Amino acid sequence: LVQPAERRPRDHEKPQEDPGDSETKGHHERNDFMAPPVSGLWELRSRRGEMRSRMELLLMETQARVCRALAQLDGAAAFSVDSWERQEGGGGISCVLQDGDIFEKAGVNVSVVFGHLSEEAAQQMRSRGKALKAKDGKLPFCAMGVSSVIHPKNPHVPTIHFNYRYFEIEEADGSKQWWFGGGTDLTPTYLNQEDAVHFHKTLKEACDKHGPELYPKYKKWCDNYFYIKHRGERRGIGGIFFDDLDSPSKEEVFQFVQSCAEAIVPCYIPIVKKHCHDSFTPEEKLWQQLRRGRYVEFNLVYDRGTKFGLATPGSRIESILMSLPLTARWEYMHTPPENSKEAEILEVLRNPKDWVH
Amino acid sequence: LVQPAERRPRDHEKPQEDPGDSETKGHHERNDFMAPPVSGLWELRSRRGEMRSRMELLLMETQARVCRALAQLDGAAAFSVDSWERQEGGGGISCVLQDGDIFEKAGVNVSVVFGHLSEEAAQQMRSRGKALKAKDGKLPFCAMGVSSVIHPKNPHVPTIHFNYRYFEIEEADGSKQWWFGGGTDLTPTYLNQEDAVHFHKTLKEACDKHGPELYPKYKKWCDNYFYIKHRGERRGIGGIFFDDLDSPSKEEVFQFVQSCAEAIVPCYIPIVKKHCHDSFTPEEKLWQQLRRGRYVEFNLVYDRGTKFGLATPGSRIESILMSLPLTARWEYMHTPPENSKEAEILEVLRNPKDWVH
Repeated sequence: LVQPAERRPRDHEKPQEDPGDSETKGHHERNDFMAPPVSGLWELRSRRGEMRSRMELLLMETQARVCRALAQLDGAAAFSVDSWERQEGGGGISCVLQDGDIFEKAGVNVSVVFGHLSEEAAQQMRSRGKALKAKDGKLPFCAMGVSSVIHPKNPHVPTIHFNYRYFEIEEADGSKQWWFGGGTDLTPTYLNQEDAVHFHKTLKEACDKHGPELYPKYKKWCDNYFYIKHRGERRGIGGIFFDDLDSPSKEEVFQFVQSCAEAIVPCYIPIVKKHCHDSFTPEEKLWQQLRRGRYVEFNLVYDRGTKFGLATPGSRIESILMSLPLTARWEYMHTPPENSKEAEILEVLRNPKDWVH
Repeated sequence: LVQPAERRPRDHEKPQEDPGDSETKGHHERNDFMAPPVSGLWELRSRRGEMRSRMELLLMETQARVCRALAQLDGAAAFSVDSWERQEGGGGISCVLQDGDIFEKAGVNVSVVFGHLSEEAAQQMRSRGKALKAKDGKLPFCAMGVSSVIHPKNPHVPTIHFNYRYFEIEEADGSKQWWFGGGTDLTPTYLNQEDAVHFHKTLKEACDKHGPELYPKYKKWCDNYFYIKHRGERRGIGGIFFDDLDSPSKEEVFQFVQSCAEAIVPCYIPIVKKHCHDSFTPEEKLWQQLRRGRYVEFNLVYDRGTKFGLATPGSRIESILMSLPLTARWEYMHTPPENSKEAEILEVLRNPKDWVH
């Protein structure tokens, strides 16, 4: 159902240029996206006041900013860029860097899909408390997001995941329901207190600009969400996570999401720079591989986005499963010795800590 | 909820001896189980006429027979044996060989659990067409099975999986519902026609003793069950699979299951012996690792037993996830070249073949 996309003719015919107000933030980056946006620059320009356009530009900027920072650091490998179309409406841009000097596998996906909500999806949303009134049984929707997992080679450099998304549904009376979701979280192989504090502090600062209650609430939500129930462990040391965000206003939530997206590079890249040349032992690499196994368990067994994607006809499997590590390992009954560095991180995964106050 | 079990006092006090009729088949093997049976040899002896006892002995015999054959072949590594108890009733014996000369990871588990069915589990069974009438809301049950996954190191030796199980539920009027399930299937990294035919032919011969319709039916069921929907691929080249088997009679189904269990060693061991010293290239090892990734995808996303186990409080996670390979790999957009050996097996995984007629 998914076809490899050519670049859209619309974009071929015209040079890529700034579709928005040239005084808005991020203007200088808009000439430098990883690929032409799904909606086309001309359309984004003509609808520059709409949230769909503003969010799509934020997604494209975020993708480009993160990919550039990672590629520059890695030096050895470049991002491959695949634009793809979804037959039912929309498409995406998948950027993947594989087997670099620093990064084992780094993927940054943008997708912008639209069409009519399936009855199953509508029911699922209603069960989450959304009263959706369909017109002639149809619910036009638009869903867009940027999603990324970065797995470094060195076991002293943590894995990061982030995802920011926007959803719009048109109801029978023409009114629109909308909400934002997202988050950024860190999965280290070994605990480094200083890194954990830096990561959470950077996220907290981004949140605090929009209200002091946000970071504590979304930090907790993150710990609850990334939980590998059958292991009694969190996937990592958390970060922030939120969903169904539709107040106080569209503008305010967008500003908040923008702050979060802008915090990705500063919360992560300094940690990579600090540790990417650390020496490590074969035992440390092995522990990293076992933790990668847990990452796979979370993503395939629990992650809502992955499960939803795998169950959705027409979704692009390679983009969804880009989140899986290049390599992973499962040993029967592996238990780290007491008081080891391996036991130290396990303790934190079992009992999440507050890193900043 | 699960405790590492000491051997039961009952078994400590008495020497392990034949609990059954010494003229029955398999008698010579009963002194040589991997560990004392969950129900205790004395109890099995005193209830030798009951299906629960006969099946538990078959499971123990099968575990011992397979483990012995594998350990003898491997030479380098031995099986570790863990007996465990389930607080709610019953327990199991997990035998795992890891990092041997021939086998990367080989697990053979027996579990025998009993207690009362949860309302959720009862509903699930009712949805599968079973009319279960509970007494005072309680449904006593007993579930037992042997389950195994063998991952060899050499990419020219296929992975095998088998599972044979028996279920009993007591209804309000004291009558018992019962059924058997099981199967044996093969997952090669590369296609070897001769091996595929040998494997299926051996299974077919075991089935044919009990009716000519069984092999074709269960071969097809196997192809349908081990389907990685999001990839459009089967996990392997199939074998046999069946569930909810409760006719023509308990005795006849048991005899059939026994034939299947006895076919495990002859359908697999000759293939291991034939290829375990085959030379292989790094590229072949890499393709094996990518296929291992698919194995993980099936087991974590689709396999009913794994999903049920992970969601069941008190289940032994290490025994359930023993099925995962020691190592696995995921590459973004990996596509084998046309007419390659890798494309050859993919073709068979996408369009299952009939190996014997």
